[in-house]
Amino acid sequence: MSPLNQAEVERLFTASPFIQHLGLKLVSITPGECRTVLALEERHLQQEGYVHAGVQATVADHTAGAAGASLIEPGQFVLSAEFKINLLRAAKGTRLECVAKVLKAGASLSVVESEVYCGTGDDLRLVSKTTVTLAILRPR
Amino acid sequence: MSPLNQAEVERLFTASPFIQHLGLKLVSITPGECRTVLALEERHLQQEGYVHAGVQATVADHTAGAAGASLIEPGQFVLSAEFKINLLRAAKGTRLECVAKVLKAGASLSVVESEVYCGTGDDLRLVSKTTVTLAILRPR
Amino acid sequence: MSPLNQAEVERLFTASPFIQHLGLKLVSITPGECRTVLALEERHLQQEGYVHAGVQATVADHTAGAAGASLIEPGQFVLSAEFKINLLRAAKGTRLECVAKVLKAGASLSVVESEVYCGTGDDLRLVSKTTVTLAILRPR
Amino acid sequence: MSPLNQAEVERLFTASPFIQHLGLKLVSITPGECRTVLALEERHLQQEGYVHAGVQATVADHTAGAAGASLIEPGQFVLSAEFKINLLRAAKGTRLECVAKVLKAGASLSVVESEVYCGTGDDLRLVSKTTVTLAILRPR
Repeated sequence: MSPLNQAEVERLFTASPFIQHLGLKLVSITPGECRTVLALEERHLQQEGYVHAGVQATVADHTAGAAGASLIEPGQFVLSAEFKINLLRAAKGTRLECVAKVLKAGASLSVVESEVYCGTGDDLRLVSKTTVTLAILRPR
Repeated sequence: MSPLNQAEVERLFTASPFIQHLGLKLVSITPGECRTVLALEERHLQQEGYVHAGVQATVADHTAGAAGASLIEPGQFVLSAEFKINLLRAAKGTRLECVAKVLKAGASLSVVESEVYCGTGDDLRLVSKTTVTLAILRPR
Repeated sequence: MSPLNQAEVERLFTASPFIQHLGLKLVSITPGECRTVLALEERHLQQEGYVHAGVQATVADHTAGAAGASLIEPGQFVLSAEFKINLLRAAKGTRLECVAKVLKAGASLSVVESEVYCGTGDDLRLVSKTTVTLAILRPR
Repeated sequence: MSPLNQAEVERLFTASPFIQHLGLKLVSITPGECRTVLALEERHLQQEGYVHAGVQATVADHTAGAAGASLIEPGQFVLSAEFKINLLRAAKGTRLECVAKVLKAGASLSVVESEVYCGTGDDLRLVSKTTVTLAILRPR
């Protein structure tokens, strides 16, 4: 991975107000794979006390975007074209961890899979799985 | 729609910390259809200045949940089993509006479609379309 | 719609062996909207006697492709990048009808929605809803 | 896996007319994992000479259903509630192979992932990835 793309991935976490507002942190980035973590607070929950599906979707989508961005050329950027999330079990705990891996890197479209784990301490369980299609664009 | 389900729909907006944190407001609810609005702030944006896909997904998912909840029996509640969102164009403006309509109400699963519009003043455009599968549950 | 694109849509039904094998027929095409019909036979069913989800998916995907193809420029062609289908109720009857409408026509990606109806005579019910993302390509 | 569920999985391949018509064969079944193979013929292709997305979707959906059925109790059966397929590259070759693995087995819903590979001889490439939500039902 080029230094420029390292910069592009870091920009996704420092220049995205919603991600900073949510509290999502970059843990690691390698070509085609990104890991993030979110310390859970009450504000991330829905009405039954579980982590809101929208929080999980945001984490999955953004981490996937970073995994995809790790492989693009300087000057390109990624936008999500669509994604689909399966909520596998109710998410409770103090921490979300996400790992996103590029399944197919293309010239104009990339497909990335994100797994979100939730729990407390070392006891984390897979709570959702997301597939993201990224459009790879050049600034207009 | 029974008064109890009106109460359940309202609870989805008053008892969900993430939704209150985001700022999403209930506009109207009728059996099988829910409308919401979000006044956009900088904290809702991603790194290119567009509304983050995670914000749109949260709005679409939660409004769909409310539309589905409008049709359930007292004592039941809904959880999203999965959803899929297509981001149709970059979302810019001062306001998101969402309308969610139940496509199929079932005894254990309901399918709801959400359209999210974005813009300023009366100039709103469809920016994303989401299909949500809701599981209909009873408290354990 | 240009005569050339009419030709492209018709080619999708005359030059696709799987579609001819299945028996899917073009009913009508206007810019951004396509209708098809399938006379059901026992070979289209699954083990419970319902129309197989794969038959519905094929019909929904192909009709969506034709709706998208109706709007492309001469020399372009469409390929499905992804689709998502919700099976809303068990499909039984003598006939499938599909209507596909373009939700967003883009330069490189189009999003199309397909509804599949099933039944006998005039008694048709919506049995599945599909969202298809088409990639718009030029021959290499 | 109980003998009864072995029987249920085998029934999915012997009692489904569309699957027999397509030519899909069961290769192996273990609890939560199913493998199938399809010898490709011209009738499986679309208008550009690639394997039709509907063929891939049928293979992915049905193999997922078998993987899910391997884990159900006697007397239950599975129906696809929804699925989403990403077509990763154009599929050409003489053979499709599919492996489906249960990601989450639930009491009323299971989530299964299917990978479809295509090629000739030992040169097979991943051509599509599908996520299937199965409803687990009892005969009425």
